[in-house]
Amino acid sequence: MDNLEYQEGRTELNALGQYALIERLTDGFEVRNKSTVKTAGDDCAVIGAESGEQKAGSFLLTNIQTLAEGVDFDMMYTPLKHLGYKAVALALSNIAAMNGNPRQIEVSLAVSNRYSLEALEELYSGIRLCCDRYDVDLVGGSIGSSRSGMVITVSAIGDVDESRITYRSGAKLHDLICVSGDLGSAYSGLLVLEREKVTYQANPDFQPDLDSYDYVLERYLKPEPRLDIVHTLAAKGVVPTSMIDVGDGLASELLQICHASHCGCEVYEERIPIDYQTSRVCSEMSKNMLPISNALNGGGDYELLFTIDQKDYDKVKDMDGVHIIGHITEEGMPSVMVTPQNSTITLVAQGFRQ
Amino acid sequence: MDNLEYQEGRTELNALGQYALIERLTDGFEVRNKSTVKTAGDDCAVIGAESGEQKAGSFLLTNIQTLAEGVDFDMMYTPLKHLGYKAVALALSNIAAMNGNPRQIEVSLAVSNRYSLEALEELYSGIRLCCDRYDVDLVGGSIGSSRSGMVITVSAIGDVDESRITYRSGAKLHDLICVSGDLGSAYSGLLVLEREKVTYQANPDFQPDLDSYDYVLERYLKPEPRLDIVHTLAAKGVVPTSMIDVGDGLASELLQICHASHCGCEVYEERIPIDYQTSRVCSEMSKNMLPISNALNGGGDYELLFTIDQKDYDKVKDMDGVHIIGHITEEGMPSVMVTPQNSTITLVAQGFRQ
Repeated sequence: MDNLEYQEGRTELNALGQYALIERLTDGFEVRNKSTVKTAGDDCAVIGAESGEQKAGSFLLTNIQTLAEGVDFDMMYTPLKHLGYKAVALALSNIAAMNGNPRQIEVSLAVSNRYSLEALEELYSGIRLCCDRYDVDLVGGSIGSSRSGMVITVSAIGDVDESRITYRSGAKLHDLICVSGDLGSAYSGLLVLEREKVTYQANPDFQPDLDSYDYVLERYLKPEPRLDIVHTLAAKGVVPTSMIDVGDGLASELLQICHASHCGCEVYEERIPIDYQTSRVCSEMSKNMLPISNALNGGGDYELLFTIDQKDYDKVKDMDGVHIIGHITEEGMPSVMVTPQNSTITLVAQGFRQ
Repeated sequence: MDNLEYQEGRTELNALGQYALIERLTDGFEVRNKSTVKTAGDDCAVIGAESGEQKAGSFLLTNIQTLAEGVDFDMMYTPLKHLGYKAVALALSNIAAMNGNPRQIEVSLAVSNRYSLEALEELYSGIRLCCDRYDVDLVGGSIGSSRSGMVITVSAIGDVDESRITYRSGAKLHDLICVSGDLGSAYSGLLVLEREKVTYQANPDFQPDLDSYDYVLERYLKPEPRLDIVHTLAAKGVVPTSMIDVGDGLASELLQICHASHCGCEVYEERIPIDYQTSRVCSEMSKNMLPISNALNGGGDYELLFTIDQKDYDKVKDMDGVHIIGHITEEGMPSVMVTPQNSTITLVAQGFRQ
C-alpha cells in the first residue's frame, strides 16, 4: 500500500530549489479574499481588511516556518533553551524583513517520548526569553507526538504601515545595497560545533573548549532578529526599496532580490562585513576555506539585506552596524561580486537542502 | 552531550493531559500588545487592532496545528490528497469553532527524501481542493527536510464580527447543548483501516474490500469543517453561547466547555447522533465495543458542539443535521451522560496521546 519509494517517473525533491518547488506546488491556486494582499514569494504574506474598513494604511504580516531535529538542529550541541529562542527569532526576522513589527506568535510542536516535561520547559524558557526581548505575545499553539525527534513550527504575526511595507521586489537601478551586522559567522559557529561533535564521538571523555569561539557559537545558536535596524530606519525616515533577511547566505538572498525586482547587482568583496572570529575559524578548518565563501553561502546569520534610494545615502552611511556593499544594476545584467583584484564572480544560489 | 533520556527527576509528557501540558509550559508568559485579545485556551487566538482604529467590531482569528506521520496519519492507508485536504480542514474547523470565516492558510512542511515531487503534488492537490471548497487563500508556507517521515503544519487565519465571536467560556445555566452531524464515525473508519492494514501485512496479496465502509472511511480520511453550520446560525440570527469543534471525542469537548464556562452538563445517550455504519463497524469489531464509546472518546469527527440560549430553541430545533443532546447545569455539578435506563455516567476526558 505504501509505495512512495517505488513510484514510476519519480522526481526527487532536491532536483528543484526550494523556491521553485513551492512555485510548482502552489501553481494554479487562486486568490479569492479581498483581504489577501500578497501571497507566497516574500518573507511574509500580507493581509489587509476584508471590507476595506480596517485601520487606514496598516497591513498584517504573517509567516510560518519549521525546524526539524537532525536537519535544522542537532540535539548533540543545541541547548533546548537556545532552540526555543532561535525558532522564535527566525519567525520574527521574517517580520523584520518586511519592515514590520512583530506582535504575536503561535508555536506548534511534534515531539517524541524521548523528551520530558523538563526538556520542554527548557525549550519554552527560550521561547519566552525571545518573546520578552521583542515584546511579542505567545497566543496559541499545540503539542502533539512525533514518531522520532522534535519538529517545531512557529508562526508569527506582525503589522506594518502601508507606507513602510518593504517587499523584495522594489529595488531600482542605482539603489545602494546595504547589509546589517556581519556575515558568515553563524556558519562558522556551526563548523566549530560539528568539529567538536566528531571529536567527542571519537572520545566521549573529551571536553570541548569552546571559550574562544563564543561569538560565532552565539551567532549560530542564538541569532537575533534585526528589529533594531527596522526601528532605526523608521527613526531616520528611511524606507528601504527592498529587503530580505539573510537566512540562506548573501548570494542566495541577493539573487532573490534581483529576481523579484527584475534587476542585477554588483557587490564588492572587500565591503562585505566579516568578523575576525569567522576568518579565524576558516583558517583553522582548512587553508582552502575562504571566509567570503561562508558569507556568500553559509547562511543562518539572519541579518537584514536591503536596498535604499541614493537620496537616503547620508541617512544610512553612518548607521551603526550597517554596511553599504554595492549597488543595483540593470535588468538583464548578472548578479556579481567584484573582487579586490577587480575580477567579477557571478553569484550562485544554493539549492534545496535535503 | 545528548542526555535527554538519562535526565534525573524526569517527568514523562504523558503524565499530563495536553491542555495541562500547554498550561504548564506557557505559565508566566505576559501579554504586551493591545492587539492580543485572547491567547491560548480556545480553538483560536483572537487578535484585534493594535491602535483601536481597526474595522469596528471585527476580530482576526488564528490557529496552528501539526499532523505527524506515524502518529496522526499512517501512510499505509492515507492517500496524500486526502491528507492535504484533512490538514487544511482541521485548521478551518478551528475557525468555525469560534463562529468565524476562514480567509487564509499557511502550510509548513518537513519531509524526508522518501517523498517525491509527484507525492507532494498529490498532497497540494488536496490542499487546493479544500481551499477551493471553502474559499480560502493559501498565502504562504515553507518546505524543509525531515530526518524521517512527513510533518505538516497548517496555520489558518479568519475573521469574525465582535458581536458573533463564540468562545468556549460562554455557556450558561439551562443553555441547550447541540451537536452537528453524527459522532464516532471517523473513529470507526480508523478502526476499519487498521484492521485491513493488519490483514494486508499478514498477506500482501490481500485486496481489501472497503466499498461498504465508504461513509466512515470518508469521515476519517476527509473530514469537513462545519462552516455550513456557522453560516446557517448566522442566517437564523443565532449566536451560540459557547462552541468547540469535536476533535477529541464528545466527552473531552464537553468537559472543555464546562471547564471554561464554569458549569456542569447533562447529555442524554439516546440523543447523541450515531450513524448506522458506526454501529455496524462496532458490532463487527467486538461484541463489547459500544458505538456510544466511539462517539464519546473516538474523536476525529470535527463536528461542532455548541450551546444556545433557550430562547433560540425554535430557531435551532429544525436545523438540518443539528441535534439537541442535553443542557448545561450549575457550576459544581458533574458533567454526566444519562443512559436510557436513567443511570448517570460521569464523563472522563482522554489524556495526552503519546
